[in-house]
Amino acid sequence: METLRESLSEKSSSVEAQGNVVRALKASRAAKTEIDAAIELLNKLKLEKSAVEKQLKASIGNGSHNREAFRQNVVNTLERRLFYIPSFKIYRGFAGLFDYGPPGCAVKSNVLSFWRQHFILEENMLEVDCPCVTPEIVLKASGHVDKFTDLMVKDEKKGTCYRADHLLKDYCNEKLEKDLTISAEKAAELKDVLAVMEDFSTEQLGAKIKEYGITAPDTKNPLSDPYPFNLMFQTSIGPSGSSPGYMRPETAQGIFVNFKDLYYYNGRKLPFDAAQIGQAFRNEISPRQGLLRVREFTLAEIEHFVDPENKSHPKFSEVAKLEFLMFPREEQMSGQSAKKFCLGEAVAKGTVNNETLGYFIGRVYLFLVRLGIDKERLRFRQHLANEMAHYAADCWDAEIESSYGWIECVGIADRSAFDLCAHSEKSGVPLVAEEKLAEPKEVEILVITPVKKELGLAFKGNQKNVVESLEAMNEEEAMQMKATLESKGEVEFYVCTLEKNVSIKKNMVSISKKKKKEHQRVFTPSVIEPSFGIGRIIYCLYEHCFGTRPSKAGYEQLNVFRFPPLVAPIKCTVFPLVQNQQFEEAAKVISKELASVGISHKIDITGTSIGKRYARTDELGVPLAITVDSDTSVTIRERDSKDQVRVSLEEAASVVSSVTEGKMTWQDVWASFPHHSSAAVDE
Amino acid sequence: METLRESLSEKSSSVEAQGNVVRALKASRAAKTEIDAAIELLNKLKLEKSAVEKQLKASIGNGSHNREAFRQNVVNTLERRLFYIPSFKIYRGFAGLFDYGPPGCAVKSNVLSFWRQHFILEENMLEVDCPCVTPEIVLKASGHVDKFTDLMVKDEKKGTCYRADHLLKDYCNEKLEKDLTISAEKAAELKDVLAVMEDFSTEQLGAKIKEYGITAPDTKNPLSDPYPFNLMFQTSIGPSGSSPGYMRPETAQGIFVNFKDLYYYNGRKLPFDAAQIGQAFRNEISPRQGLLRVREFTLAEIEHFVDPENKSHPKFSEVAKLEFLMFPREEQMSGQSAKKFCLGEAVAKGTVNNETLGYFIGRVYLFLVRLGIDKERLRFRQHLANEMAHYAADCWDAEIESSYGWIECVGIADRSAFDLCAHSEKSGVPLVAEEKLAEPKEVEILVITPVKKELGLAFKGNQKNVVESLEAMNEEEAMQMKATLESKGEVEFYVCTLEKNVSIKKNMVSISKKKKKEHQRVFTPSVIEPSFGIGRIIYCLYEHCFGTRPSKAGYEQLNVFRFPPLVAPIKCTVFPLVQNQQFEEAAKVISKELASVGISHKIDITGTSIGKRYARTDELGVPLAITVDSDTSVTIRERDSKDQVRVSLEEAASVVSSVTEGKMTWQDVWASFPHHSSAAVDE
Repeated sequence: METLRESLSEKSSSVEAQGNVVRALKASRAAKTEIDAAIELLNKLKLEKSAVEKQLKASIGNGSHNREAFRQNVVNTLERRLFYIPSFKIYRGFAGLFDYGPPGCAVKSNVLSFWRQHFILEENMLEVDCPCVTPEIVLKASGHVDKFTDLMVKDEKKGTCYRADHLLKDYCNEKLEKDLTISAEKAAELKDVLAVMEDFSTEQLGAKIKEYGITAPDTKNPLSDPYPFNLMFQTSIGPSGSSPGYMRPETAQGIFVNFKDLYYYNGRKLPFDAAQIGQAFRNEISPRQGLLRVREFTLAEIEHFVDPENKSHPKFSEVAKLEFLMFPREEQMSGQSAKKFCLGEAVAKGTVNNETLGYFIGRVYLFLVRLGIDKERLRFRQHLANEMAHYAADCWDAEIESSYGWIECVGIADRSAFDLCAHSEKSGVPLVAEEKLAEPKEVEILVITPVKKELGLAFKGNQKNVVESLEAMNEEEAMQMKATLESKGEVEFYVCTLEKNVSIKKNMVSISKKKKKEHQRVFTPSVIEPSFGIGRIIYCLYEHCFGTRPSKAGYEQLNVFRFPPLVAPIKCTVFPLVQNQQFEEAAKVISKELASVGISHKIDITGTSIGKRYARTDELGVPLAITVDSDTSVTIRERDSKDQVRVSLEEAASVVSSVTEGKMTWQDVWASFPHHSSAAVDE
Repeated sequence: METLRESLSEKSSSVEAQGNVVRALKASRAAKTEIDAAIELLNKLKLEKSAVEKQLKASIGNGSHNREAFRQNVVNTLERRLFYIPSFKIYRGFAGLFDYGPPGCAVKSNVLSFWRQHFILEENMLEVDCPCVTPEIVLKASGHVDKFTDLMVKDEKKGTCYRADHLLKDYCNEKLEKDLTISAEKAAELKDVLAVMEDFSTEQLGAKIKEYGITAPDTKNPLSDPYPFNLMFQTSIGPSGSSPGYMRPETAQGIFVNFKDLYYYNGRKLPFDAAQIGQAFRNEISPRQGLLRVREFTLAEIEHFVDPENKSHPKFSEVAKLEFLMFPREEQMSGQSAKKFCLGEAVAKGTVNNETLGYFIGRVYLFLVRLGIDKERLRFRQHLANEMAHYAADCWDAEIESSYGWIECVGIADRSAFDLCAHSEKSGVPLVAEEKLAEPKEVEILVITPVKKELGLAFKGNQKNVVESLEAMNEEEAMQMKATLESKGEVEFYVCTLEKNVSIKKNMVSISKKKKKEHQRVFTPSVIEPSFGIGRIIYCLYEHCFGTRPSKAGYEQLNVFRFPPLVAPIKCTVFPLVQNQQFEEAAKVISKELASVGISHKIDITGTSIGKRYARTDELGVPLAITVDSDTSVTIRERDSKDQVRVSLEEAASVVSSVTEGKMTWQDVWASFPHHSSAAVDE
């Protein structure tokens, strides 16, 4: 879970597109010239293609002028190849809702599998899976019902809704970029507003909108004062209409409410981790930034429960030597940029609050880099004091640079005891851990003993529900019931799981208080929470893996997604060189073997030239292609180098599975099998 | 997707629990005597334990008297070991909502992985992942807004809601079971009502409730007339409150609306399959049957798109020889029971409508049996004519027998062209396939050409959204726009993805009709839809895998889940025999190796006796346990046979992974390694 406030404001560091179409075209022509030169060089010197690709990347990826053109190219490719589809497209789509099409779905499934392997399996986490539909009381306790809001303004005539901060931000940016008449003083003021607007109160934001005379962008009509709009999708549970519910805005609450059971499952030992992968929902006022800000998305969240007095981590040494870009509070405040830190030192110096937080920062770094995120465009940014919730001890975001600027993709927060305390208080169930005390002390405790025999006679099949509800009473409820039973002999009691009242008689339950010696320290654990926005990570991955390279003829730019095999949506394509039964049969044999070892692949038996088929496959990010050109052996071609080896028909599937499962590198393959000249291939 | 009606009525074949507590206790005592006798026999004759287990199964699993006791035992074990948790338990839970706790979550994840392997990978299906939040128009087209209802009655004084059919059913069953005074004639009438009530109209159901004087079960207050209650969770998309939406009641619609893109992605070839796994939601009036009827659940759905004129299947021969329990319409009507059929013959004789439907029935059978469903308690039941929607060609349910009776877990329906036609009509986008014609024919077509230059100047970054919306107009809308542009030169146009109107000028789009020779047959494909209720399959699997066996002392019944390794939540536990640093280090080495090859496992370093640790592990269904009792070798113990072998420390992880991944059977292991006597073990 991100802290409420920061999740609701888009990053001010987001770099707005600055170029226009003409400039983008010029830049792309300039890039084209560089590419052509590079190709000539390649042909002349027979150099590795990697040099060209580096140049290409420099000229296309980094130039801020064609950032938007680059994004358009990525997004067009993604949409054309069905990595994603605007949801309900035949009904003209709905803002903020996207489908994952077949390759996108496969990428997502690979990312989630790897997440399970990297976090749940390797750290022995307890995975849970809770419903999306969530009763109001749970989200009342967490603060979402009251505080999970954005400020909204309405076009006073048309009723169209806008996010108030968006309008102010757009106004300031446009003035700064396009109005050449404003004074230096005014410019400074606008920059200041941009910097501090995240902290504006409702009134301050309203006052600024009035002061600047901002109107509805579509109609120029006047705007209402800002007012809070709750971002949760609301619904109603059951037929009566009396149980309000929401679609969960995060998965974390499902874990917190289960703390007690999970703690017992873990043998009452701390620390332990619970994790959950699932859908979350935010009814954004006006979704922008395409795939990055959507109304429904997949979260993967970890809650690490730890003794607040001991946040050391036994495996910290495994990540202590990692070095990567970090952007601590101090560097941000003094106007410096992110720089490389050694994680162990950052923890030792107190830049990162504790070892456990540091351990997760390191594990998140490894996770993202292994997925294929460029480590030079990944940084860990510490929250400023005013960004953090009052209860948080420390908070770092993994931010990935994309064409939209630096995007928060993973939040790693030490939330102290806030969440467990909130649910303890609301539910009356203590969510606490225990530790043996050196010296015992005396306390008074509540004892509720349902008389199962009587309850069984009275409620038969419903007995279990009644017993559970009785045992779940808090002290106040129980003492009230005791008093009523003593005075009236009977009491009406609401059993939630039955959705009705039952009548409890005096002989059905005994309630008392007794004194007890406690030998334990009882405390509320701290929670350290790494929370992953899976869709955002995937989008950034698309941008980092995307590149173009010239076709052999040099006239055309071909797109390629350089996904690591781990995340590639399809691991291998199988091409019979020409349409002929013998080759197609051989292709089917290979296909069956690949399927049996769980390697996702595709046969392409179209008569298209093999070069075009390679290009098609590169655009889907398929790392390997098998071309069947005889009935005894085949060629295997690697996507990035375009190198080919010749392998016997029998070995083909196992070579592919070894490479895609990481048991062998392409270099190993290249060293072990005869090389195949691609002279015949028109790519 | 199940057909609407049948999904809403619980199976009349569901066997109601007939025993009471006293009878269950007696039966369980009888069973206990049998067990004791069996144990004596074992000790005396040194027989294999399997004989005892068979006897146990016969005495415990099959007796209809202790069906409910059996279920209670399964459910208690599941809840105690956190296979599932009533959601939001600390707030006393909410009917129809359950969490998967750690082992349940692992089982679910294994079932879904295998589903992906068995269906998506092996059949090269196109997987998609669409949002749960669904705009009203989509579900209006599918019929859910109007027809996805249950009939409800209200307590006229208290307002409590009940499912009308439940009350009538309970009334009839109770009369038949408990009222010994009713005449034979009356009994026949009640039985008849039970048989036909699924077909009752609102009025008929209301009349019966009145006639029998049925009142609210909790208060005996009078009831309202029945009225339809829509089972979808309703919500609102966006901030304005003007876009109603629902949480999807099934995942299928997300696939249907994407048919066009998927068809192109597949190279415009039929047949092809699209698939989706995801959450679905039904706001049940009063959920009963515990884990089987819930308000949020996971569906896995396949839509097989096929030419209605050719429903043969190229891979049918691979399943044609399978033999399993089928329950065709004719057998049901004539009062016979399900019997074994050869699938190939059932298709050849026309019992199953076509090869493709038959192929999926075969694949579903293989899927369920490999998961661990007992094939003797699995049958394929054909829908009766009055159960099927009018458009359906044929429909078979995979039903699994559980303590609740025969439960529909997978529906396999030939839905003909219904869904694609419904969305074509509502959206105006033709969802059709083409086939080359022998002779071309002439037709008139609509051509919409957005002028991108003008649109780019006018709408800049929004150009793409405007272009897409223009291109998505249907014929009526386009011809209306053309007329307005010609008369007024300008028209207001709503762009859904921008959520606002834009102004389209005459020079921005050209709309015309042109004549064209068509060389193709254009038709709406048929849809064959296997739809899997994952939660129901998992619950039945729990019942089929559950068993008890006596502890060594014989006084205590120990629970065991005999999950196949494929679905076992944890594949292996690692036990240092005693608490000692040397053994614990060795255990950690094995643990690390298991994690690196993705084998889920757990170390148990508690000082508890090894027998107790085995019992604990059996109750979680862990197939293998490694006990570290030296620093050079370990024992590996198999759950079902309780046999043990001795293996070197280095080989332990690889033996475990071979068995759990199905590369080796336990018999292979037993034959290859020295046997270890369990004399020292107190199980």
